[in-house]
Amino acid sequence: MYIRELSKPDGRKLNLYSRRPIAWDIPPSLLEAPPGANPHLRWHPLRGEWVAYAAYRQTRTFLPPPEYNPFAPSNDPVHPTELPRGDYDMAVFDNRFPALTGSAHDPPESLVDTLPARGQCEVVVFTQDPEGALGRLPLDQIELLLEIWSHRTEVLERRGDVRYVLPFENRGAEVGVTLHHPHGQIYAYPFVPPIPQAMHENEAAHFELARTPLLQDLIGAEVQSGERVLYQGREAIAFVPACARYPYEVWVAPITAVASFFDLTPGQRADLACALKTVLLKYDGLWQRPFPYLMAWYQAPLDGNPHPEVHLHAEFYPPYRSQDRLKYLAGTELAAGMFANDALPEEKARELQAVAVKW
Amino acid sequence: MYIRELSKPDGRKLNLYSRRPIAWDIPPSLLEAPPGANPHLRWHPLRGEWVAYAAYRQTRTFLPPPEYNPFAPSNDPVHPTELPRGDYDMAVFDNRFPALTGSAHDPPESLVDTLPARGQCEVVVFTQDPEGALGRLPLDQIELLLEIWSHRTEVLERRGDVRYVLPFENRGAEVGVTLHHPHGQIYAYPFVPPIPQAMHENEAAHFELARTPLLQDLIGAEVQSGERVLYQGREAIAFVPACARYPYEVWVAPITAVASFFDLTPGQRADLACALKTVLLKYDGLWQRPFPYLMAWYQAPLDGNPHPEVHLHAEFYPPYRSQDRLKYLAGTELAAGMFANDALPEEKARELQAVAVKW
Repeated sequence: MYIRELSKPDGRKLNLYSRRPIAWDIPPSLLEAPPGANPHLRWHPLRGEWVAYAAYRQTRTFLPPPEYNPFAPSNDPVHPTELPRGDYDMAVFDNRFPALTGSAHDPPESLVDTLPARGQCEVVVFTQDPEGALGRLPLDQIELLLEIWSHRTEVLERRGDVRYVLPFENRGAEVGVTLHHPHGQIYAYPFVPPIPQAMHENEAAHFELARTPLLQDLIGAEVQSGERVLYQGREAIAFVPACARYPYEVWVAPITAVASFFDLTPGQRADLACALKTVLLKYDGLWQRPFPYLMAWYQAPLDGNPHPEVHLHAEFYPPYRSQDRLKYLAGTELAAGMFANDALPEEKARELQAVAVKW
Repeated sequence: MYIRELSKPDGRKLNLYSRRPIAWDIPPSLLEAPPGANPHLRWHPLRGEWVAYAAYRQTRTFLPPPEYNPFAPSNDPVHPTELPRGDYDMAVFDNRFPALTGSAHDPPESLVDTLPARGQCEVVVFTQDPEGALGRLPLDQIELLLEIWSHRTEVLERRGDVRYVLPFENRGAEVGVTLHHPHGQIYAYPFVPPIPQAMHENEAAHFELARTPLLQDLIGAEVQSGERVLYQGREAIAFVPACARYPYEVWVAPITAVASFFDLTPGQRADLACALKTVLLKYDGLWQRPFPYLMAWYQAPLDGNPHPEVHLHAEFYPPYRSQDRLKYLAGTELAAGMFANDALPEEKARELQAVAVKW
């Protein structure tokens, strides 16, 4: 992996990544962020969680026409974009409209507790091709992405104020995506957010009793059943979990637990890339159209401790329950926290198993 | 409040409610549920929560044309509906497609724990007028609804297998509503679901220290500030909470804590109806169009204990962040559990305060 670290004129970091050496003469891109990003956190005492407020985000770019794609590589100073022209594979840069940023300061007084919304929001552009898709990238470029997530986690850990790094991709207008150029995001939180925190507590309780990681045991049972498996290689697996909350929910993981991206062996990384590509191609093949989803990668918190109980994995939450019907989150999901799934995981696994994948 | 309890031909319960006596000769309505509803629960070991599976729900009614409105009062045996003709205000009946039902039995074996999805899903039709809206009902009919929620909670508690009763309304196609005739739902869970459970834990921890209910203290601070208050009567209040997760989030509550609907005094109920109507009319007045939302009412769990720490209240989660933009729940909300709000609660409160309400 080759890296070029640049700074944009507004001070934001821009990192170019490539499988090949990157030329020295690539200038940073010129698009500037509006000044004054100063998000803050407020404590929600009833739910016991932080909420981030970033009021200036209301003005963020919204479904611009193709000629205004801010992720298109360009050296045009009149219509600047986030990425420079040049030979590289992927790029990571600070979000122009961060919900969390290292420069947050002086939160307002409130009747609930407040804090500066420290942390980091990064954008990961997967390819220079605005018409591309993560699943159509060559395998070694998907492996590169796994290496980039590892590198970003290391870099963000070094800051000292980040406790959790979550790479994710929102894909499709159905999940609110405002820019269709293939990209994901990385949120670096100054605390462990509620959902990974709950997972870690359940993983720790299981490990305490069983001395084996919870998800590794679950994957062992999925392998043995085979009923919901979409891909099984030597080192990685993709499956519809028996407890899927979304109809087309899929999990991707190494078969043997590793806590974080930087614990992956090259063999695990290569097989994870195969598992990931298989899922993405099956999704797009299912209805012969781009399949929207939220993909999130869970790893260990950054607290200086080893986490043998934590099992790095991705969860996909697609918004559709059938070809023409969305699954809306409503009363029972958003207000009670109990998901009601209209489909059996076994049925949806069969649908996805039946999609032939051609690489 | 007058009640008529009927049984539909398929065995489902139908309760008619009215402010006036109900005639004896109203026949039950004739629409039948497809047989075989047998939902089950599976345990999600990573999240530590139950997920409900109700596969037969895939076939449920979806945005039918007006002439097929299944909530229109009708005695036509050829095109049966859920409601009979007659003089009554509201009706509550068992959902045809329940995610939870008392007759659930023999859950399938799985590699995760399973249970029958016991409990109850009820539909509450707010008015016989398919073009009506909860906020446009007369005040005493909104008071009736608060009495109905109290009665349903009592009835469901008597079953013995219900631990939590959540009345809610999903309103608008934006939140996935499949039938536009004004109605809400009641979910009666066989356990306390994760979100009310977390609230109760935070309320109990606060009460242990302060000897006062958490939300009552929060409301005291909101009253003192006044900045986000939308309605304040002698007994009830409506406000945008300082820790709002959704841009137009509003909470409605009695000013003094009561644990459950059946603890409300007539004075509190009357003022809560005013607070609720005010919020609903402000919502619809904001952009002069029906305002979509999820409204959920939180009350104490049904565990036989008094709950002086619990404070009955409603939370509204509207899906819009501005007149033409939806707030999508994506990576940070659904995968991490940290909400990022693009708007300050103070700004959104000012917008709603500025909406004049005419009754």
